Amino acid sequence: MIKNQDILNIEIGVVGLGLMGSSIVVALLISGHPVKGIAPKKNDMKDALPRIIDQLKHAEACGLLERPIEAYLERLTLSEDYHHLKDCQLVQECVTEVEEIKGEVYQKIVAATGMNTIISSNTSAIPISILQKLVPNPSRFMGVHWAEPAYMTRFLEITKGEQTAEDGARWVLELAHFWDKEPTFLRKDIRGFVTNRLMYAVYREIFHLIENGETTVEDADKSFRYDAGSWMTFMGVFQRMDQLGLEDFAEAFGRIFPTLCNSDKVPLLMQRMVEAKARGIQNQRGLYSYTAGEAQEWERSFAAFNEDIYHLASAYSPTRKKKQFHE
Amino acid sequence: MIKNQDILNIEIGVVGLGLMGSSIVVALLISGHPVKGIAPKKNDMKDALPRIIDQLKHAEACGLLERPIEAYLERLTLSEDYHHLKDCQLVQECVTEVEEIKGEVYQKIVAATGMNTIISSNTSAIPISILQKLVPNPSRFMGVHWAEPAYMTRFLEITKGEQTAEDGARWVLELAHFWDKEPTFLRKDIRGFVTNRLMYAVYREIFHLIENGETTVEDADKSFRYDAGSWMTFMGVFQRMDQLGLEDFAEAFGRIFPTLCNSDKVPLLMQRMVEAKARGIQNQRGLYSYTAGEAQEWERSFAAFNEDIYHLASAYSPTRKKKQFHE
Repeated sequence: MIKNQDILNIEIGVVGLGLMGSSIVVALLISGHPVKGIAPKKNDMKDALPRIIDQLKHAEACGLLERPIEAYLERLTLSEDYHHLKDCQLVQECVTEVEEIKGEVYQKIVAATGMNTIISSNTSAIPISILQKLVPNPSRFMGVHWAEPAYMTRFLEITKGEQTAEDGARWVLELAHFWDKEPTFLRKDIRGFVTNRLMYAVYREIFHLIENGETTVEDADKSFRYDAGSWMTFMGVFQRMDQLGLEDFAEAFGRIFPTLCNSDKVPLLMQRMVEAKARGIQNQRGLYSYTAGEAQEWERSFAAFNEDIYHLASAYSPTRKKKQFHE
Repeated sequence: MIKNQDILNIEIGVVGLGLMGSSIVVALLISGHPVKGIAPKKNDMKDALPRIIDQLKHAEACGLLERPIEAYLERLTLSEDYHHLKDCQLVQECVTEVEEIKGEVYQKIVAATGMNTIISSNTSAIPISILQKLVPNPSRFMGVHWAEPAYMTRFLEITKGEQTAEDGARWVLELAHFWDKEPTFLRKDIRGFVTNRLMYAVYREIFHLIENGETTVEDADKSFRYDAGSWMTFMGVFQRMDQLGLEDFAEAFGRIFPTLCNSDKVPLLMQRMVEAKARGIQNQRGLYSYTAGEAQEWERSFAAFNEDIYHLASAYSPTRKKKQFHE
């Protein structure tokens, strides 16, 4: 069993220092780990430290730090040299979602670490069972999928591939509680992970309703925000059923399931978006339209919301651990 | 166009004073309307006033009132006598979801009001197109579906039946903004309303994943709470796609839709729940198990969360109106 004190001695590597990687570095530093951040790209190395400092300042402003920023930075090494990973018990990969690039990165990690080091990938696109074929010890390979910003979300999805050993996955699961997460544990490597799959079921139905003229983009969003949004942070889908009383559900399932959309096809509206090269907020053309100012204001506002919902979710979490910084 | 001042003179009736009906009464009182509450059942009449006072106290504690409770109560008439509905421009029905009972209630409302009075039903089970056949003027009949507690949720679903006239539905839609709602407007009377249908798509997929051993009830709930729950109150499904960047979605839809569950059948787990007479929180037997104390504590905790999420949702709403109590 991992003890609070152990965290201080469990070195963790993070390979890939983009936005996601940097925020994982920050999450691990806040938890007390010594962290080795490796930049596979020159640009990452240049941008990483200022970004990590910004994120630490943000975490401080949100009341997540118990010591001065310098105390966390002292435990961080940033480098392009993989040899710094030598003593890491866990190396988290978060580079581009391209199998060849990930494969090259794994070779360098393997060359620098021992056979017992666990390698985890942040992928949400490539099955773990495929990625783990790229390393010499696949039993020590798994998916550890973070949500951005990693230091201020409680989500973490741990996924076993076909060859992942149970003990290593359990160890990371235990460790994740020290990161103040509510980790979920996927025993099988399904396509699209749990929440993603559930959301795809929503996407399929919602595009169907819109194509049939039964609702609009704006109304569907409002309805989801103010209905589902009013309970989802507090409870999950099954708890919601328990709350509403289970009696009528079986009958409703029998009545409504046969009317749900079963299409395999990419919805027409989505095809049109692709043709129009709409990339959403990024180029201000999407399912909604935005001015540059609106897009910016919207992102600023979401960052503020993010902080509020993190604190709210934490306040109502049954398993929240009080974090301590140990010396 | 409705003006702030008009609200004070638009009388609204509420028929059915159970938990839902009472909280609709409170929502309308807070908005400034004179309200006539009609109790079709003797028990409702006995319990309604204390419950409404409790709910007003709750609203006061949450900072929703601008005047003393008495000022709101002065505008409320409670009775078993339908004749008090005489001057109401809108009568909201929220009685049991049984067509015959609703039909009897509509006859009494019609006998007491003019041909121009709009009758709205809170139903979420019976299609509006069917219910409106029970009244002599179906063009003035529609669905107005509230979420409980009605004075502290921003959700409201307005549904036209086949025969509902556009002007009346638009008038209620306008009115709803004075109730501090984010109303959605369903042009067609689809089975199961928007959010319900989207949630059924989630239910179908989530039971499928569990029956295949790909996740557990607990993990699926955690994943939805801490992933979807971290953005849903802020934005809807389409806004979320715009935020993530639309580019990869079309490709992912084509890949994942064919793997989603298309079953028409009531999931086995749900069938077992029905056989075991599990009614969730109500009898402490459901998809989770609870002690009586846990169930109570959980409901208390959700009531507190409800208040927090209402304020959070309001703070990030782009269209929030400042309420005023006018004399």
